[in-house]
Amino acid sequence: MATVKFVQYGLGPIGCGIARHVISLPGYKIVGALDIDPQKVGRDVGEVLGLGRKLNLPVSSDPSVIKRSKAQLVLHATGSRLVSVRRQLFAAINAGCSVVSTCEELVYPSARNPRLAREIDRLARRKGVAVLGVGVNPGFVMDALPLFLTSVCKQVRKIEAKRIVDASKRRLPLQRKVGAGLSVEEFYSKVRAKELGHVGLLESARMVADGLGWKLENLSETIEPVVAEEKVETQFLAVEKGMVAGIKQVAKGTKAGEEVLTLELQMYVGAKDPHDSVLIDGEPPVDAVIRGGIHGDSATVAIVANSIPRVLASKPGLVTVRDLPIVAFAGNLQGRCRANK
Amino acid sequence: MATVKFVQYGLGPIGCGIARHVISLPGYKIVGALDIDPQKVGRDVGEVLGLGRKLNLPVSSDPSVIKRSKAQLVLHATGSRLVSVRRQLFAAINAGCSVVSTCEELVYPSARNPRLAREIDRLARRKGVAVLGVGVNPGFVMDALPLFLTSVCKQVRKIEAKRIVDASKRRLPLQRKVGAGLSVEEFYSKVRAKELGHVGLLESARMVADGLGWKLENLSETIEPVVAEEKVETQFLAVEKGMVAGIKQVAKGTKAGEEVLTLELQMYVGAKDPHDSVLIDGEPPVDAVIRGGIHGDSATVAIVANSIPRVLASKPGLVTVRDLPIVAFAGNLQGRCRANK
Repeated sequence: MATVKFVQYGLGPIGCGIARHVISLPGYKIVGALDIDPQKVGRDVGEVLGLGRKLNLPVSSDPSVIKRSKAQLVLHATGSRLVSVRRQLFAAINAGCSVVSTCEELVYPSARNPRLAREIDRLARRKGVAVLGVGVNPGFVMDALPLFLTSVCKQVRKIEAKRIVDASKRRLPLQRKVGAGLSVEEFYSKVRAKELGHVGLLESARMVADGLGWKLENLSETIEPVVAEEKVETQFLAVEKGMVAGIKQVAKGTKAGEEVLTLELQMYVGAKDPHDSVLIDGEPPVDAVIRGGIHGDSATVAIVANSIPRVLASKPGLVTVRDLPIVAFAGNLQGRCRANK
Repeated sequence: MATVKFVQYGLGPIGCGIARHVISLPGYKIVGALDIDPQKVGRDVGEVLGLGRKLNLPVSSDPSVIKRSKAQLVLHATGSRLVSVRRQLFAAINAGCSVVSTCEELVYPSARNPRLAREIDRLARRKGVAVLGVGVNPGFVMDALPLFLTSVCKQVRKIEAKRIVDASKRRLPLQRKVGAGLSVEEFYSKVRAKELGHVGLLESARMVADGLGWKLENLSETIEPVVAEEKVETQFLAVEKGMVAGIKQVAKGTKAGEEVLTLELQMYVGAKDPHDSVLIDGEPPVDAVIRGGIHGDSATVAIVANSIPRVLASKPGLVTVRDLPIVAFAGNLQGRCRANK
């Protein structure tokens, strides 16, 4: 099987993690890397990734690198909002590349950006490439996993998914993103400025509802602070008692006047019992728990890499995790691609 | 969307459950039913299914009913062994029907019957239909679910799946199938006669190994009795202390000299902590539990019904749950089929 040439678009912690992991897999070759950070542009990719060896490939800030590199795949990890990354995606698609992206809104883009989703779909079909947004959340814990679990149900009345993350075990940007260390007032002012909070609950909720054929009358989202009940210290920061330890964000969907879908995300430093859970009120009921929860950063890197064979084998267009065959660990790219035949 | 006409092949407890459920869904019409039981042949299907109304459709023992009924789908639930149901499957495929079957060996037929699997695949392709074997086990708990969970792993070193079922909550044939009430000697003699035990561990193990690109050097299966430590009574039978309460069946796969795959099924009356679990030693690790376990009978009915839209939208041939897009609850057939486009 020919080597898959890819460009890494975005060299933040997740982007670097993806590139490092995919480079380590047989059958892949990195042929370009893009970032806008002046601290990175021009430096050797191997150095920026911390590989301990040069790749003789400079980090570029110019998306035309994608076309010139003759890549067939772009691994994209730059932003959560589709409008802010749309040009990057267009550049990749126009260069004839399939795309796997961590952009949260791209995981189910019809939720918030239906017109843009159609535009991406049309362009991808025209260029004969597939585009997928994926991650651990959205993309797995609160959407693909609950949907997958409903496959054993004759009836589904209600679904409740929870993800409780101890942010103290995660990187500093994530601790900041959940507001750890802020006062309650600062927290709410940052929420209003959209500088805080998780993007993806609405995407997950829409994917689940559409997957089950549910027409929700109402879908609402709330965000509030989790206040520290005692002082918490992490590797990076300290949160005094009474200050914000993190967020509690909840999406609720109703159908026929009843709340049928609840997605609850708590991410805060010092969370006592981190776990992911899916509770299906159905026939039969399903009460699933992932003890300790799935580690977000490394799981996102994994699911991006594991999705690649499915995306490369997919029909062209904008696809979601709901459209693809079961994505499994794909350490062996060759094996996976054969299996797709 | 046009109505999907189907034939129910096999009217045992599971087959009747499937037919009753699918009849209750919008978009389906039963146009034939097959069984060999003289107690059922000739009677009205509505009566045999306990619908409380006639369907003006007699149960037949003649497979030519499939062709005459102009069905496009056969729901098949007659036996666990592929060799014993092959003619039934051929009849369905030759009549131009796609098939969803509970035949355990059909869930991953290349495990034990590679030649027959190829034969079915060729015939299905020629007839332009898809054939799927599915169920809760094999088909979900010990294969599709573990594979699905590995999608968040960068590395997978070892997988351990367990299913602990309290057989006292299940139907009598299942209590018999696990040997409840036998002496230990009778148990082993029935094992030797292949009258006891679960069919499917090898199928699950092969599906997981192939899905991960693992070449197992060795795959072995053991079966032993679980002996009652105290008297257990069920709705149907009583097991004295020292007699067999059920089975413990374990499949183990090794790779590079290490045990990397363990599938353990315990089904016995009086099991204390019924649950399904999947433990992935990987990066990140995944420790998933379905508390109480998934109820086998109704879940099998559900997953057969929920798979139908995916099978009807599939490319022709023999397919496995590994090849299909995520199967979810499909109460709304129309919605699901549109989503497949």
